[in-house]
Amino acid sequence: MVIPSLIQHKRDGGSLEPAVWRKLIEEYTAGRVPDYQMSALLMAVVWRGLAPEELAALTQAMLDSGDRLRFDGPTPPRVDKHSTGGIGDKVSLLLAPMVASCGVAVPMMSGRGLGHTGGTLDKLEAIPGFRTNLSLKETREQVARIGCAMLGQTPEIAPADKRLYALRDVTGTVESIPLISASIMSKKLAEGLNGLVLDVKTGSGAFLPQLSQALELAQTMIGLAQAHDCPTVALLTAMDRPLGRSCGHTLEVEEATEGLRGEGPADLMTVTYALGVEMLLLAGVAKGAADARRQLEASVTSGRALDTWRRVIEAQGGDPKVVDDPERLPQAGEVEVFKAPRDGVVAQVEPRRIGRAILELGGGRRTIEDTIDPSVGFVIPAKPGDRVHAGEPLASVFARDRTGIETGFKGLREAIVIGDEGALTALITHRVTAEGVEALSS
Amino acid sequence: MVIPSLIQHKRDGGSLEPAVWRKLIEEYTAGRVPDYQMSALLMAVVWRGLAPEELAALTQAMLDSGDRLRFDGPTPPRVDKHSTGGIGDKVSLLLAPMVASCGVAVPMMSGRGLGHTGGTLDKLEAIPGFRTNLSLKETREQVARIGCAMLGQTPEIAPADKRLYALRDVTGTVESIPLISASIMSKKLAEGLNGLVLDVKTGSGAFLPQLSQALELAQTMIGLAQAHDCPTVALLTAMDRPLGRSCGHTLEVEEATEGLRGEGPADLMTVTYALGVEMLLLAGVAKGAADARRQLEASVTSGRALDTWRRVIEAQGGDPKVVDDPERLPQAGEVEVFKAPRDGVVAQVEPRRIGRAILELGGGRRTIEDTIDPSVGFVIPAKPGDRVHAGEPLASVFARDRTGIETGFKGLREAIVIGDEGALTALITHRVTAEGVEALSS
Repeated sequence: MVIPSLIQHKRDGGSLEPAVWRKLIEEYTAGRVPDYQMSALLMAVVWRGLAPEELAALTQAMLDSGDRLRFDGPTPPRVDKHSTGGIGDKVSLLLAPMVASCGVAVPMMSGRGLGHTGGTLDKLEAIPGFRTNLSLKETREQVARIGCAMLGQTPEIAPADKRLYALRDVTGTVESIPLISASIMSKKLAEGLNGLVLDVKTGSGAFLPQLSQALELAQTMIGLAQAHDCPTVALLTAMDRPLGRSCGHTLEVEEATEGLRGEGPADLMTVTYALGVEMLLLAGVAKGAADARRQLEASVTSGRALDTWRRVIEAQGGDPKVVDDPERLPQAGEVEVFKAPRDGVVAQVEPRRIGRAILELGGGRRTIEDTIDPSVGFVIPAKPGDRVHAGEPLASVFARDRTGIETGFKGLREAIVIGDEGALTALITHRVTAEGVEALSS
Repeated sequence: MVIPSLIQHKRDGGSLEPAVWRKLIEEYTAGRVPDYQMSALLMAVVWRGLAPEELAALTQAMLDSGDRLRFDGPTPPRVDKHSTGGIGDKVSLLLAPMVASCGVAVPMMSGRGLGHTGGTLDKLEAIPGFRTNLSLKETREQVARIGCAMLGQTPEIAPADKRLYALRDVTGTVESIPLISASIMSKKLAEGLNGLVLDVKTGSGAFLPQLSQALELAQTMIGLAQAHDCPTVALLTAMDRPLGRSCGHTLEVEEATEGLRGEGPADLMTVTYALGVEMLLLAGVAKGAADARRQLEASVTSGRALDTWRRVIEAQGGDPKVVDDPERLPQAGEVEVFKAPRDGVVAQVEPRRIGRAILELGGGRRTIEDTIDPSVGFVIPAKPGDRVHAGEPLASVFARDRTGIETGFKGLREAIVIGDEGALTALITHRVTAEGVEALSS
């Protein structure tokens, strides 16, 4: 392989043969293609995109670079959910126990946060003792026993993706729909699923803010899943404001637990139920959407979902008492209420600014080595469209110390825009399947 | 410096501040920015280009990464020539002695060949003993004594360019007008010149085949030179066929020597004189173009240029007897005449195919480590437009052995197209200065 010629070909808008992509990924994973050539090629891909055959070959090569989650004998249908990530998105924490309680196996593999969004693994690790580095064997056993497991990408799963993602992260080559799709799907397809639900965020706080980009990403991932006989449905959901009230690791674990107890905020529950319905439908355990919804609600009202949550925490080494006594989670040193500076209507709660403020409070990661303070964050009940009066509480800041409170206030002052008008946009805007795109408004 | 953000900014079409480019090049040269980030950034530059301020800052930073050729006390005006390279382009070998013989100091810094074009340094090293790795001190002294020196990029000159070029070469990021311009000019501006002449090739065998690209490259380099008070003129010359008759290292040294003796082929001499006239005008040693031309012709007819050539060879450790006894140059094992396969008119002598054939004969470099066989190559008197008859000699192949002769024949069969019509296009098409572009036809 003459790598510079391949890079030039891609750079000039050409396509590389599937066999070439396979070989490239093999050689890169084996350390025989240096990072400096791969990063130049990745930038050329950001520029020129990938033809469908190229994308399929790249994804397959990344998938084949590692092992898969294999389930022996008859098991319940296996379904997972993937979200492209957003501020306050703790849906996975509710969904895995709820869906597992409905008789679906959920081998949920999640990621860590980097930059302005939090990661499910980091949220889980706010629970003292919680271990996310399950082996494939542990995952298999726990899914068989409890119905779900919540883990990080194991070293056996798509090691090529692991290396490529780390390289993309430091070379400005993350924002590419085909590269994002290949990365996500190479991992998801390794889970041996019978169905997959994608939560693709749109709006200012989303990874890809434009609706058109979100649609393209959803369709690209569905196309890849289709080729691997993994029925997949995507919902496009709003990330122009935080999801739910809580943003920050401890606070989100608390809110997820409240949700499983039937006390979650409306927007969080709407998204959770919608994704859960799709998962139950894909698993074939519901007669239709209404039945799926009813089953999910029953998992909450019966306490089964909360119980599954406790068992997951316990099985993965965490302290299950946090479910009933959230004070056992790491607590912030200082808490202070942020009040409306004027009368008016909430025009905006800018999620990226909230994400950045959490970073500034020490609750995020600037580099992959950073450690996270799970206790810090915000509770922001205010939503766009809410009428407020000067001096009325809008949010709470959870910080390590007084300096943090000031930092948090500054973040809220910039993130929450009060004007003369504002309105909450639709929460779930599109449903995408292999058959097409359906516009929704819920 | 948060490098990934800088890469993203460039990737998205933004400009980086001059201070950022300075710092980036400093950190890269010091080994604190890894190759994999630089190569991704370079690909983003290939994609998005560079704003004029960015290009100026990058070039300046590359220039400042090393030392410069400094001349103490009053010296004759110093002028150099740079060619973007082509098949059979041995102009430097004639020009340095001719121009030096007219009282101009020529500190000529050249490069090596890679891929299909030959490099001046490689041609010089066909001369037994010839040493091109002169230090800046040796160069200074030799220029003072003989009027010219012919050397490679010393380790002191633009080390940032050296590292960047090596990286670009293996990452498909060579073909970028701003990057090419910065690379060339960072070296040329380090020579402490009073003037610079650029020979920018156009046509199928040129590095950038399109006329528009050649013009843009010329203007970009002139702009950079302008900002550094180095008056610069560019001639756009044809590289849709080889220049002169000889292609290959020994053969080109022989042809250059013949040229200095007044016996060079017309096309080679036309380009050499045209570039020489510009050099003399920039040096201010001629009253006008006609006077410059007369001086250059006199340097040949008087034997002074040939004598300077002998002195340069001797000063740089080479065997000056090759000038009068070219048999002392490395000789090919086999020589055979290639005959016209049919009656007709030469429609094309494709320079890239000739370049590739020289590579196949062992006379070029596929990787920077390859050693070159200087003895191999072609003498091709046939030019487009020549009427030929079947069986008439068109060219000679110089090879190591019989296999090489076959390889050479195959190259010639593919490179020399005989049809029913053909014509020689103009040799020098445009003259570009800081003031504008002048179309020529010589």
